[in-house]
Amino acid sequence: MTEIEIGRGKRGTRAWAFDDIAIVPSRRTRDPQDVSTAWNIDAYRFDLPVLAAPMDSAVSPETAIAIGKLGGLGVLDLEGLWTRYEDPTKQLEEISKLSGSEATRRLQQIYAEPIKAELIRDRIAQIRAAGVTVAGALSPQRAAEFSDTVIKAGVDLFVIRGTTVSAEHVSKTHEPLNLKEFIYKLDVPVIVGGAATYTAALHLMRTGAAGVLVGFGGGAASTTRKVLGIHAPMATAVADVAGARRDYMDESGGRYVHVIADGGLGTSGDIVKAISCGADAVMLGSVLARAEEAPGRGWHWGQEAVNNQLPRGNRVEVGTSGTLEQILLGPATMASGETNLIGALRRAMATTGYSDLKEFQRVEVVVAPYHS
Amino acid sequence: MTEIEIGRGKRGTRAWAFDDIAIVPSRRTRDPQDVSTAWNIDAYRFDLPVLAAPMDSAVSPETAIAIGKLGGLGVLDLEGLWTRYEDPTKQLEEISKLSGSEATRRLQQIYAEPIKAELIRDRIAQIRAAGVTVAGALSPQRAAEFSDTVIKAGVDLFVIRGTTVSAEHVSKTHEPLNLKEFIYKLDVPVIVGGAATYTAALHLMRTGAAGVLVGFGGGAASTTRKVLGIHAPMATAVADVAGARRDYMDESGGRYVHVIADGGLGTSGDIVKAISCGADAVMLGSVLARAEEAPGRGWHWGQEAVNNQLPRGNRVEVGTSGTLEQILLGPATMASGETNLIGALRRAMATTGYSDLKEFQRVEVVVAPYHS
Amino acid sequence: MTEIEIGRGKRGTRAWAFDDIAIVPSRRTRDPQDVSTAWNIDAYRFDLPVLAAPMDSAVSPETAIAIGKLGGLGVLDLEGLWTRYEDPTKQLEEISKLSGSEATRRLQQIYAEPIKAELIRDRIAQIRAAGVTVAGALSPQRAAEFSDTVIKAGVDLFVIRGTTVSAEHVSKTHEPLNLKEFIYKLDVPVIVGGAATYTAALHLMRTGAAGVLVGFGGGAASTTRKVLGIHAPMATAVADVAGARRDYMDESGGRYVHVIADGGLGTSGDIVKAISCGADAVMLGSVLARAEEAPGRGWHWGQEAVNNQLPRGNRVEVGTSGTLEQILLGPATMASGETNLIGALRRAMATTGYSDLKEFQRVEVVVAPYHS
Amino acid sequence: MTEIEIGRGKRGTRAWAFDDIAIVPSRRTRDPQDVSTAWNIDAYRFDLPVLAAPMDSAVSPETAIAIGKLGGLGVLDLEGLWTRYEDPTKQLEEISKLSGSEATRRLQQIYAEPIKAELIRDRIAQIRAAGVTVAGALSPQRAAEFSDTVIKAGVDLFVIRGTTVSAEHVSKTHEPLNLKEFIYKLDVPVIVGGAATYTAALHLMRTGAAGVLVGFGGGAASTTRKVLGIHAPMATAVADVAGARRDYMDESGGRYVHVIADGGLGTSGDIVKAISCGADAVMLGSVLARAEEAPGRGWHWGQEAVNNQLPRGNRVEVGTSGTLEQILLGPATMASGETNLIGALRRAMATTGYSDLKEFQRVEVVVAPYHS
Repeated sequence: MTEIEIGRGKRGTRAWAFDDIAIVPSRRTRDPQDVSTAWNIDAYRFDLPVLAAPMDSAVSPETAIAIGKLGGLGVLDLEGLWTRYEDPTKQLEEISKLSGSEATRRLQQIYAEPIKAELIRDRIAQIRAAGVTVAGALSPQRAAEFSDTVIKAGVDLFVIRGTTVSAEHVSKTHEPLNLKEFIYKLDVPVIVGGAATYTAALHLMRTGAAGVLVGFGGGAASTTRKVLGIHAPMATAVADVAGARRDYMDESGGRYVHVIADGGLGTSGDIVKAISCGADAVMLGSVLARAEEAPGRGWHWGQEAVNNQLPRGNRVEVGTSGTLEQILLGPATMASGETNLIGALRRAMATTGYSDLKEFQRVEVVVAPYHS
Repeated sequence: MTEIEIGRGKRGTRAWAFDDIAIVPSRRTRDPQDVSTAWNIDAYRFDLPVLAAPMDSAVSPETAIAIGKLGGLGVLDLEGLWTRYEDPTKQLEEISKLSGSEATRRLQQIYAEPIKAELIRDRIAQIRAAGVTVAGALSPQRAAEFSDTVIKAGVDLFVIRGTTVSAEHVSKTHEPLNLKEFIYKLDVPVIVGGAATYTAALHLMRTGAAGVLVGFGGGAASTTRKVLGIHAPMATAVADVAGARRDYMDESGGRYVHVIADGGLGTSGDIVKAISCGADAVMLGSVLARAEEAPGRGWHWGQEAVNNQLPRGNRVEVGTSGTLEQILLGPATMASGETNLIGALRRAMATTGYSDLKEFQRVEVVVAPYHS
Repeated sequence: MTEIEIGRGKRGTRAWAFDDIAIVPSRRTRDPQDVSTAWNIDAYRFDLPVLAAPMDSAVSPETAIAIGKLGGLGVLDLEGLWTRYEDPTKQLEEISKLSGSEATRRLQQIYAEPIKAELIRDRIAQIRAAGVTVAGALSPQRAAEFSDTVIKAGVDLFVIRGTTVSAEHVSKTHEPLNLKEFIYKLDVPVIVGGAATYTAALHLMRTGAAGVLVGFGGGAASTTRKVLGIHAPMATAVADVAGARRDYMDESGGRYVHVIADGGLGTSGDIVKAISCGADAVMLGSVLARAEEAPGRGWHWGQEAVNNQLPRGNRVEVGTSGTLEQILLGPATMASGETNLIGALRRAMATTGYSDLKEFQRVEVVVAPYHS
Repeated sequence: MTEIEIGRGKRGTRAWAFDDIAIVPSRRTRDPQDVSTAWNIDAYRFDLPVLAAPMDSAVSPETAIAIGKLGGLGVLDLEGLWTRYEDPTKQLEEISKLSGSEATRRLQQIYAEPIKAELIRDRIAQIRAAGVTVAGALSPQRAAEFSDTVIKAGVDLFVIRGTTVSAEHVSKTHEPLNLKEFIYKLDVPVIVGGAATYTAALHLMRTGAAGVLVGFGGGAASTTRKVLGIHAPMATAVADVAGARRDYMDESGGRYVHVIADGGLGTSGDIVKAISCGADAVMLGSVLARAEEAPGRGWHWGQEAVNNQLPRGNRVEVGTSGTLEQILLGPATMASGETNLIGALRRAMATTGYSDLKEFQRVEVVVAPYHS
């Protein structure tokens, strides 16, 4: 990386956001219908390189099933409302009607309800019964506590997702999760993150993870940057982690760890750019929270918005842009990049002449900050 | 090109938009009336280096004739309303009155009407009868189907214009257009594009094209970037293709392929910059759709806005800025850069001391992003 | 520093603001409760690396005491309203109600009242009586005149704060303050500034100062830049002065001069970035003027706004964001970065795996201008 | 200059605007009253490095006198209203009341009135009678026609000012002004411009000019850039021309040609930056048109707004910010940078430790694009 001198006592490196880059057509062209957007992780194959983020505004057991049937993977938050309440409909309804000033406080109360192991079992069973691939997410803080329940309930893929997950967490007050041991003991493939740098991702890969989530899942970038001073621009983060994948593949004698972009993905153009930087798939939150079927009812929030000492996100109104099918597969009726995500990806690949996602990671990229 | 490391696994190059650059006066000065803006392609000579884009909002048979008489070249879209309807006045009137929400859907219906070969013949005959140079455009998808009709109808210049046109299109379901063969067989000079990179343009030049359209004709840059992640900033695109022209001239033993900037040209300043980057001429859409005579009646749209799966543009209201003559030749009554385009070009050339367009491609350029 | 050619006759260097940079997690993670934010200067230890700026809108004797009890250091302006008026309540009330057009003129009148030595004594005694560390500030212009009074009154830390303070001030009309002599004679540690460059700070360090304020305290950056053309972007300023600290430590055989960022600190994220660039502590003005207890009653202004020839700041309405305790220690109820400053700092340190402030100065930084 | 590749066929250089840079304090400090802002050109000495631009909105014979008495130099436009009308009060009044839509057209009519030689004589005599230095401006197009009249009327300094003035103007229809011969024959020192690059300025210096105006006087930068694609960011332009001054001094064996920044100077901060880049003085238009005494009555326009084929500027409402004295010498009552220009310059010089303008050209500069 090119170093930049911030001042005599500090150096940094330049980082780029998806908004800073674009792809350019430069070789042959191809028919969109000849393009494959399929993606495999472990024994599981998906027609769409899309994971729905474990967030209560986007994924309920029902939408996890619907997304699975459309070709993607819905990941249920196993520490969300669905495992705290027998029927969270009332809570979801209330959240969608809270005024701005009371939202954070009331969200804190609603999420104070304890998680129930039996609800974890029931929700997983419900998704499994529909015949789609089953995935559930826990935070690193509670992964040890609930993992047995989750595994017995029968998930296919296990997701450990936190703001920042490191291979080495240090604590004076409790025994932190030993990721390597934990993953080794589990029978199912684990996807873990977020990680935002080469080093952090490389360490996660060495724990045996099947996939790494790239990003800093702590709320909207603008908020995180204002509150914590932290920002990991996604184009650079994904490209750095893709570099770690390549180096780890060499070091491990051929283990391919999947890179999943998780954050900063507001439009189909962002998804295209994530893959162009080396992502194998993307994890989507807000764009899926805009579905007519979304449990959030036009609102979107993350667990970090609920933090009772230091909220680092807000419940935001995202509105509704179409059905889940229109969002993923079209047709689009507006040129906003929020519907027919996969159709757009397919056309971007065709226009630049690529026929599968792995090849498309080599597409030519320009740095061209956008003039709004 | 200077490489930029996006991250460890990806490199890109820097690209510049017209808004990023400006020209600077630095040598002698000259009288504006001593400057020539004339341009030749094949046997055809034009006083103005201006092609009107084949878009229904800008070019009708009548405005093609008017633009020809003013010294430019009007290119009729042979897959637009004028070859689908005997008299599209009613449709144009309706389009100008559609509400925003119904526009895309209704445009799709209006453009579902089939193209008629006899209308292609009639429209071309009408333009030819007026004594101006005749040019018509087809998409690469339908070029083979209608080219005989077009040639027999007697065009002087044949334009093949698509979002991205490559010398090598790959399809599993149909035999794609072999551009080289196609151009070889035609008796008239062919202008083809869009192409946005050195490599893409070089391959198009090798097909025998007389001119290459530089750009990514898939709708407004902002929309294309959001939907497809694609953006080819025009200053870099034109300068790259001009580099291809130079290298192809060497490789071909002297064939000069004309470079025509097509996109991102909203003001006379943008036209000046396009030529400063190496363009021989410019293709104009929205600025001509602002003419009082324009068929769009103050509205502007492209074929890509009509796409029924993935619209990548919108019908936009552009208003009216003057007559075609005022727009091209002045006088201007406002300092907005939307009228007296050629007067402005002439003055920019005079102020920097150049007397013809080819020389003016050498004018000094600075990179100076604009502070709005 | 990388040099940039502005033009043939001038060179400059690139400077970065806090808004241009961000920190990134890249190693281990840690529990926020295991993190220490403590800071020492001379014999004084503080739980929070926070000094309240000597500005009448932020620090009264009462808030100085409150901030001291919360773990920070309140610095009283000894040339402000509290040493000009027996009871400035009426003046503070009036200032908060002035209309925009009369504000500057009336502020000039209110501040025309002379400073009284006995009020300096009384205010310092009042703070001392509360059992917290006592600090007062004078400008370099009046430091000599009142220093005896201040020292006898019993301050623990002496602050000399001006727009720009240099180790060598030149005057034809009066004997300027000889900082080195002045500091040598005082019995208490001195914090002095603002300084914005390596050279200026190095010279201040050589005067024997215990701490250097980094910044250009002459009003809001935007105003200073418009009026004086001066701007010292803070990330570079702090990093440059941290470089001077390192070099001075070597040259002095181990004297560690504290670097205190003073300016451009509007959010907890900015505080995080200041420390990441090498600051040992931060001096806060406007964020503390937002406290319910703040004497400014929701308004904020500096002495430079009062200048009767060339005002370089304005009285601005900053509103109220919570109690002093909420602002410093939380809990936050919004994700705006204006409350729970220390909680945010603690979390940023934990997320990046650092356990104390000195270590945290080594955190990884990226240059990534923010897309608002 | 560092070259930037725009694309394979075009290279450019980076250019910087005043908004891109700032000055930083870094050495000693000084008392503002010890600073000299005096400036000499030829035999003439001025307390203020300020020339009022020859524009009808800013300079009348009366304001030229007032500015001279305040220590600057008022330059009357000898092709403006004052030499076309015996008493232009009625016309100025009318211009200030024109509606936006009719302004350009009516300005064209008002300026169609012929210039009268006897009015040139009378105006110059009026200014001379007041005992201040007398300066008048002609365009290069009409300099030959009226120079005899002007010289006989007795100007001290002759200004030739056009959009771009080159040492070599080429024309097929008329004999262009031979600047070198023209200047050689005149008995008075000549200031000539605008020039925006090293080469253009060097050639003007070789004609024998006493001063060079740096800029592109063709209207507001935003408009010129939109209409002509021309933009000469002022920090780079001034620094380039200052480089030419240095090289010409060497080549000529010691002739010092004065560099006068002319354009982009909206605040006192901009004036500070112009001098920091190497300007000896500044020519001000809009900031002086804001004077209560200004003939423009709160409106501002240039000759280029009057062009009847291609207006490249607009009549803009600038309002009123104070008397001429307040604008130049203060006191300021707002921190907007539009009043007490010289007080601000003086303070900027004092804060950075410089005592005269020539020294101040060496002040340290940073590149730090402003975050608004």
